[in-house]
Amino acid sequence: MVFLENGTVTSPLGFKAAGICAGVKPSNTTKKDIALIVSEKPCSCAAVFTRNLVKSSAITVTQRNIADGTAQAVIVNSGNANTCNADGEQKAERMCELAAEVLGIDKKDVIVASTGVIGQPLPIEPFEKGAAALGKLLSENGGTDAAEAIMTTDTVKKEAAVRFTLGGKEVTMGAVAKGSGMIHINMGTMLSFITTDAAVSAPMLKLALNEAVEQSYNMVSVDGDTSTNDTLTVMANGLAGNEEITEQNEEFRIFADAMTELCKSMAKKLAADGEGATKLLVCRVLGAKTVLDAKGVAKAVICSSLVKSAMFGSDANWGRVLCAVGYSGCDVDVKLIDVAFKSKAGVVEVCKNGAGIDFSEEIAKKVLSENEIEITVNLNDGECGAEAYGCDLTYDYVKINGDYRT
Amino acid sequence: MVFLENGTVTSPLGFKAAGICAGVKPSNTTKKDIALIVSEKPCSCAAVFTRNLVKSSAITVTQRNIADGTAQAVIVNSGNANTCNADGEQKAERMCELAAEVLGIDKKDVIVASTGVIGQPLPIEPFEKGAAALGKLLSENGGTDAAEAIMTTDTVKKEAAVRFTLGGKEVTMGAVAKGSGMIHINMGTMLSFITTDAAVSAPMLKLALNEAVEQSYNMVSVDGDTSTNDTLTVMANGLAGNEEITEQNEEFRIFADAMTELCKSMAKKLAADGEGATKLLVCRVLGAKTVLDAKGVAKAVICSSLVKSAMFGSDANWGRVLCAVGYSGCDVDVKLIDVAFKSKAGVVEVCKNGAGIDFSEEIAKKVLSENEIEITVNLNDGECGAEAYGCDLTYDYVKINGDYRT
Repeated sequence: MVFLENGTVTSPLGFKAAGICAGVKPSNTTKKDIALIVSEKPCSCAAVFTRNLVKSSAITVTQRNIADGTAQAVIVNSGNANTCNADGEQKAERMCELAAEVLGIDKKDVIVASTGVIGQPLPIEPFEKGAAALGKLLSENGGTDAAEAIMTTDTVKKEAAVRFTLGGKEVTMGAVAKGSGMIHINMGTMLSFITTDAAVSAPMLKLALNEAVEQSYNMVSVDGDTSTNDTLTVMANGLAGNEEITEQNEEFRIFADAMTELCKSMAKKLAADGEGATKLLVCRVLGAKTVLDAKGVAKAVICSSLVKSAMFGSDANWGRVLCAVGYSGCDVDVKLIDVAFKSKAGVVEVCKNGAGIDFSEEIAKKVLSENEIEITVNLNDGECGAEAYGCDLTYDYVKINGDYRT
Repeated sequence: MVFLENGTVTSPLGFKAAGICAGVKPSNTTKKDIALIVSEKPCSCAAVFTRNLVKSSAITVTQRNIADGTAQAVIVNSGNANTCNADGEQKAERMCELAAEVLGIDKKDVIVASTGVIGQPLPIEPFEKGAAALGKLLSENGGTDAAEAIMTTDTVKKEAAVRFTLGGKEVTMGAVAKGSGMIHINMGTMLSFITTDAAVSAPMLKLALNEAVEQSYNMVSVDGDTSTNDTLTVMANGLAGNEEITEQNEEFRIFADAMTELCKSMAKKLAADGEGATKLLVCRVLGAKTVLDAKGVAKAVICSSLVKSAMFGSDANWGRVLCAVGYSGCDVDVKLIDVAFKSKAGVVEVCKNGAGIDFSEEIAKKVLSENEIEITVNLNDGECGAEAYGCDLTYDYVKINGDYRT
């Protein structure tokens, strides 16, 4: 499996996309904010969504549309979440209708997603006016425009694609995603759309997706807030010509592993570009009794505001790491725990057997001044491991979120 | 029941306290950092502690010392948490010994507590040198010095006392506490010491304490991090002369209610002075099916980084409140929820039946610019309510925690 250079959601065969500025937020006159992603033929489809009880109407409509395991297109906007609006469902339905009309497909085969401010009525005019233009712009090079159109506070586009072989056929899988606040562990995730030209049945797609999400999007936290709009979909159009995967055979394993790697790379992009972030944090846990304990510890460390603040300050305050391990609720023996900080500048061991050890503050500062830090926690109590992804907590997080609606 | 002006931990009969600067942190040469609180006679005693598996050695020693329900003094320091140190227990024991020697009491009747940096060996010299001076300074007006000595990043001292009548006798109860970071719901709490001249058996003290904590310290969150050192103790010396409370009678109710009110007032002080905070946030939940649901919703709202950031910016971004309600895990019907913001500048209703309503942004800004904000969430689905206490998330929180150890 290889990552493609400039890989995106239109890298797989038979997918086109487009993104334009339609002015969903009246104040926005330049940034692309609506996008279409479409397959030339109907796809098998699977998805995961937020577990928040407060949900975007877009999710309600999408869940209905993909209940049959089929989809052909995605229409998505940034600038407004279409959540907590009395007329939200009607608007989401209308978005599907407009996409279906311009694409000449069934409106029941459209996935709809929104991201942005919660609780402000979604203006439908930008879609009425923009749909035809979007249709005309659809292109095999349009993935990047779609990636741009779904950005909110993101500072960089998130897209990637992988290529691998399934039963002798070359298969491609692409993804776009947006962050970058209101991101927390154990969700569907933010918005992300995966496309592939592999032939995979809807039930097998769902299995692969669940597995991939568990190790990627569900292990990312930016700020501990679970979004109301989290939507992750995968569409597989089968144009690669492989024999359709309909059971958990060897091909399924290759496919699912590729999806996991793709999603992990996207998860890291999300974490690194968390609101206000200056550093990607990876918490790597080793030596746990169970995978659940490993994950629990990794998540607790990555979510700690105090650990995040210390990392922002390049301060090797490992006591806060141990503190988070202690309240994780996981089965750990404090007296066995080792902690180290690691980056491309080096490694510094700071805690052995649950107690501090002498270390050079100078080296620690150097290690922690890099923009990608690994916090290694060895529980020395078993064989299981896990990784979680997050970012530092900075002045800019507060700034971005102190006045988000204007 | 009345709150005393300038009430503190030495307001009840028979308690003395003192605080001095002993230089626990070598860089500290001015701020008081060790304190003694002592009763002229042995007290019945109860306590709650952090649920973090990583615990200060001070807690281990205190738990041993008060297992018999008796205590007579507290020795406490700021500047070092005495947590995750190989020799921590030995140092905590030595602190008790030094206090016992200077007070002429049994070292098994000493409560010991520490707060500050985790994972740095505690220097014992400041205690060896300071104990005698502390003993000499003990005074009935020393409560405030003790309140000062336990401060870390706190910007104001936290102390209060209440007076009420038990069986015809005037009774006083005082408290000191410190915040102000690494504070999260459902703990013992930060450090807080309660004193009273009421006569109450140790088991009844524990019952009253559990009840008070549940509605006060356990409903405060500053940053979602559960401290390793949370310690809350209560000592009752009986000098008020009331008949000892040994069962859950009418006197017990009066006593427990007074303790709850005292602890609530302290909880608000803690929240208002959370690290970097500019505003006290109170989330008041009404109309819940159960008290547990009411508490769960109140806590989720108060803990949300996004709600906290919006409040810092005086931005009426109520969608984030609804978002937090939605992921609280509580039994709510989103379509019934009303949300309003309230302060001494007025009230602004922002959401009815789970959807936005028109409101004046100008009035909202005015309401949210005050330094004490109530976020009212009416679930309209039952008769139960709860309050949680928190603060806004500010640049200064990040600043304080970006480089805490130096």
